[in-house]
Amino acid sequence: MSQNRVSVELRRAYKLVNHGPTTLVSAAAGARQNVMAAAWVMALDFEPPKLAAVLAEDTYTRELAVASGELVINLPTVAQAALTYQLGSVSGRDVDKLREYGVSVSPGTKVGAPLVDGCVGWLECKLIREPHAEQAYDLFVCEVVAAWADPEVWTGSEWRFDDPAKRTIHHCAGGVFFATGERLTAPRA
Amino acid sequence: MSQNRVSVELRRAYKLVNHGPTTLVSAAAGARQNVMAAAWVMALDFEPPKLAAVLAEDTYTRELAVASGELVINLPTVAQAALTYQLGSVSGRDVDKLREYGVSVSPGTKVGAPLVDGCVGWLECKLIREPHAEQAYDLFVCEVVAAWADPEVWTGSEWRFDDPAKRTIHHCAGGVFFATGERLTAPRA
Repeated sequence: MSQNRVSVELRRAYKLVNHGPTTLVSAAAGARQNVMAAAWVMALDFEPPKLAAVLAEDTYTRELAVASGELVINLPTVAQAALTYQLGSVSGRDVDKLREYGVSVSPGTKVGAPLVDGCVGWLECKLIREPHAEQAYDLFVCEVVAAWADPEVWTGSEWRFDDPAKRTIHHCAGGVFFATGERLTAPRA
Repeated sequence: MSQNRVSVELRRAYKLVNHGPTTLVSAAAGARQNVMAAAWVMALDFEPPKLAAVLAEDTYTRELAVASGELVINLPTVAQAALTYQLGSVSGRDVDKLREYGVSVSPGTKVGAPLVDGCVGWLECKLIREPHAEQAYDLFVCEVVAAWADPEVWTGSEWRFDDPAKRTIHHCAGGVFFATGERLTAPRA
């Protein structure tokens, strides 16, 4: 898949996830790579941009992220809702998920973890190790070192979801998602 | 305002926020109370349910939450988008926001912090103090001790946003929000 990406300034990277979309987390260590779904991801700081991400203890993606100190937060679309649910329902310890589900990836620019093609946003991250938060809450602090978006839905440094299939998605539970909906502008306070 | 609420089982409380809506955080200490907007809130655990919330260092709501050890995460709607932006644009140190913006509240059942009327979800929380995360990242760990939803949009233990005005909202930046959009069900993996 050919994948068009534009660079997002680091000081604006939080805007990629500020609306709370569900994510795909990709990681690699040596020749091993994996992708899993993760809904519990949020912005944590503006500049340098940081994210907080919950990576369950037994996941293969967490093992690879910890081994390499890197991961990518990918933002999947309505067109990828079924794929996202699949990637969250099986373990990379049991299945080569990229091969099994035909997931095409591209190399990261600042990290070894791959970018998942067909997504509309990508945040390349390095872990800021926080042993207590990781052990007590499966909570990982990530510094964003490069950020990218699909220019068809990211224009003027903000999301513009005109193509329904390219809207981001928000997971509820058990494969039920909401698409990102209508854009509203509140009057200046 | 009369406000209809149904109890949400604690083991299902994460489903109130799993789709990443923006929130209003309310807190009280003694006779003082305040409400602010906070987009950086996510689920952190299923049972007992926990949330992670970023509360900026200088905010009055954080001061009250720390003083009391309690807060409420309220989920505002499309109809409250302008109010949400207002509540996130001024400080309770300068303005009595509840009075200024005509915010009606109801008492919490397990905490002293109030529930904001007109919202569609409420998570009453007690802080689990984590000094390092609070100081380094403004990150607060909250245990949900009671949860409520508006039965018009929460049925069968899940969100059903049939009324457009009662959809939850997702903040981008600067008063631009997305409404929670179309419901999608991915096929079982």
